[in-house]
Amino acid sequence: MTNIVIIGGGTGTSTLLMGLKKYPVSLSVIVSTADDGGSTGILRKELGVIPPGDIRQCLLALSNAPDDVKELFNFRFSSGRLKGHNAGNIILAALEKITGNIDEAIIQAGEILKVKGNIFPVTLKPTTLTAILENGKKIVGEHNIDEPKAGLRFKIQDLRLTPSGQANPKAIASINKADIIIFGPGDLYTSTLPNLLVKGIKEAVNKSKAKKVFVSNIMTKHGQTDGFKASNFVKELEKYLYGKINVVVINNKKPAPIYLSAYKKEKAEFIEPDLSPGKVLKIIAADLISKRIVKKAIGDKLVRSWLRHDSKKLAKLIWKLI
Amino acid sequence: MTNIVIIGGGTGTSTLLMGLKKYPVSLSVIVSTADDGGSTGILRKELGVIPPGDIRQCLLALSNAPDDVKELFNFRFSSGRLKGHNAGNIILAALEKITGNIDEAIIQAGEILKVKGNIFPVTLKPTTLTAILENGKKIVGEHNIDEPKAGLRFKIQDLRLTPSGQANPKAIASINKADIIIFGPGDLYTSTLPNLLVKGIKEAVNKSKAKKVFVSNIMTKHGQTDGFKASNFVKELEKYLYGKINVVVINNKKPAPIYLSAYKKEKAEFIEPDLSPGKVLKIIAADLISKRIVKKAIGDKLVRSWLRHDSKKLAKLIWKLI
Repeated sequence: MTNIVIIGGGTGTSTLLMGLKKYPVSLSVIVSTADDGGSTGILRKELGVIPPGDIRQCLLALSNAPDDVKELFNFRFSSGRLKGHNAGNIILAALEKITGNIDEAIIQAGEILKVKGNIFPVTLKPTTLTAILENGKKIVGEHNIDEPKAGLRFKIQDLRLTPSGQANPKAIASINKADIIIFGPGDLYTSTLPNLLVKGIKEAVNKSKAKKVFVSNIMTKHGQTDGFKASNFVKELEKYLYGKINVVVINNKKPAPIYLSAYKKEKAEFIEPDLSPGKVLKIIAADLISKRIVKKAIGDKLVRSWLRHDSKKLAKLIWKLI
Repeated sequence: MTNIVIIGGGTGTSTLLMGLKKYPVSLSVIVSTADDGGSTGILRKELGVIPPGDIRQCLLALSNAPDDVKELFNFRFSSGRLKGHNAGNIILAALEKITGNIDEAIIQAGEILKVKGNIFPVTLKPTTLTAILENGKKIVGEHNIDEPKAGLRFKIQDLRLTPSGQANPKAIASINKADIIIFGPGDLYTSTLPNLLVKGIKEAVNKSKAKKVFVSNIMTKHGQTDGFKASNFVKELEKYLYGKINVVVINNKKPAPIYLSAYKKEKAEFIEPDLSPGKVLKIIAADLISKRIVKKAIGDKLVRSWLRHDSKKLAKLIWKLI
């Protein structure tokens, strides 16, 4: 069976997983451990656990459990001391405290959720992300980078992780066995790239003979990728990877004006598919926008995109690469 | 298959369930909804849910899930905003919020925990317990009755429930089908009797042709049953039941002096088995004390007894009644 490893963490990763899990492939996901926003940020800070939010989303994406059980892992409390907390995050934190081991906690949550596939946090200890802007200013913390304060923000010139730590050995092992390694879709600087800053990850990726695929986002994100075209994404990814991407999968359908103007209020734009195939690079362009518009969960304080990839179309294109 | 209904709620009920679940009987438990202490009290107050603590303990007692999953439902957080909260209580609260229905929430938690048996909260809305003492003083709230402030407390003369509400129809249905109805072991005024104050419960019990069994506690509890002998327990139970008990199962082995003096510090004494059989009443007396001494979980703020019934011996005696 083809081994697919997805490197990322956010909602984009979940979308991809939901599509791919219907194919006869062996799926592994490597998830960034720099998240410090929302319910996840509080649990991480107060209990010292690996940020559970992205792991939870991947578990849900790979779950074959009845909807009721999935709903439990998605439920957000709206009052009292638990306000804003997600039940799934709390369960993961409890399991990590019980087992003393996030890998084991994920396996146990995976049994409750009847998960097929593997989820590996990229490190076994939480990490802190720092962005250094063009003007020299430092922004510390994934959440602060993800949701910039009002006003103009300078381009991110460099990204650092403390501790850059040691990679989770299981994450490295999954890369070593991979036939396809996929980056994205997801926030470039806060979901995808933090994984490459962990000691051992990019080395393993570059050593691997796997096909390296980048799935580009649909829209730019203010404070991270303002003004980026598809080529800018690939350039940045290759810069942090110290290696080459073989395939770019990209949406070429401009969203309807109503969405473009809504995104404009958040200073986000359509990502122009400005890439052309090269010696190494293959380009797969298609209409990849899902017809389902995503609504925010009540009590969820994070800004989330509402246009998403169509998981079926995306998975079908990946499947053709095998 | 013999239908056994247990009316109670606290740890004593769990002990009995753990023993009985190994027999080929159909088990149902009716649980008081007046609890307002600890993690349970906070969730009840802040989220308006049915107090989850006793339900959780019954779920665990009836669970056939791997130990890891059980541990999740038993885990208590020891720091941060979640300090003192139990993960199982949080899960039950989330499931009740999701389903909008505690019966459905219990079924779903029961699926995760691979539970065999039924657990019915006695009402579908939380209730408040009030004790009226001999001196006319009112003590409001289960927790305040359960853990009396320092100093002498007068005898409980009357017990009231607000709202006395309507019984959970599924609880009534289980009584209607019962072959054996068991009261206790457990705190008389805060676990057992509150169930009988709910409209419809005692009527159903008295109408039933089931054998009515009372399992007496091992030790008295300060503020509730000071100075009580076995006969006092039965008298009080029959007073609130407006009916007769057919069988009393009672421990006749006095605990070792080391335990008696430890309990003495909590103003608790050995319950003398002072009953003799009568026309209606059958007495089963035996050494029922478990060899396992119970330790308190870290972060658990409730006072819990450390001498418990031996669940195997207890279940064997009940089984002989069939």
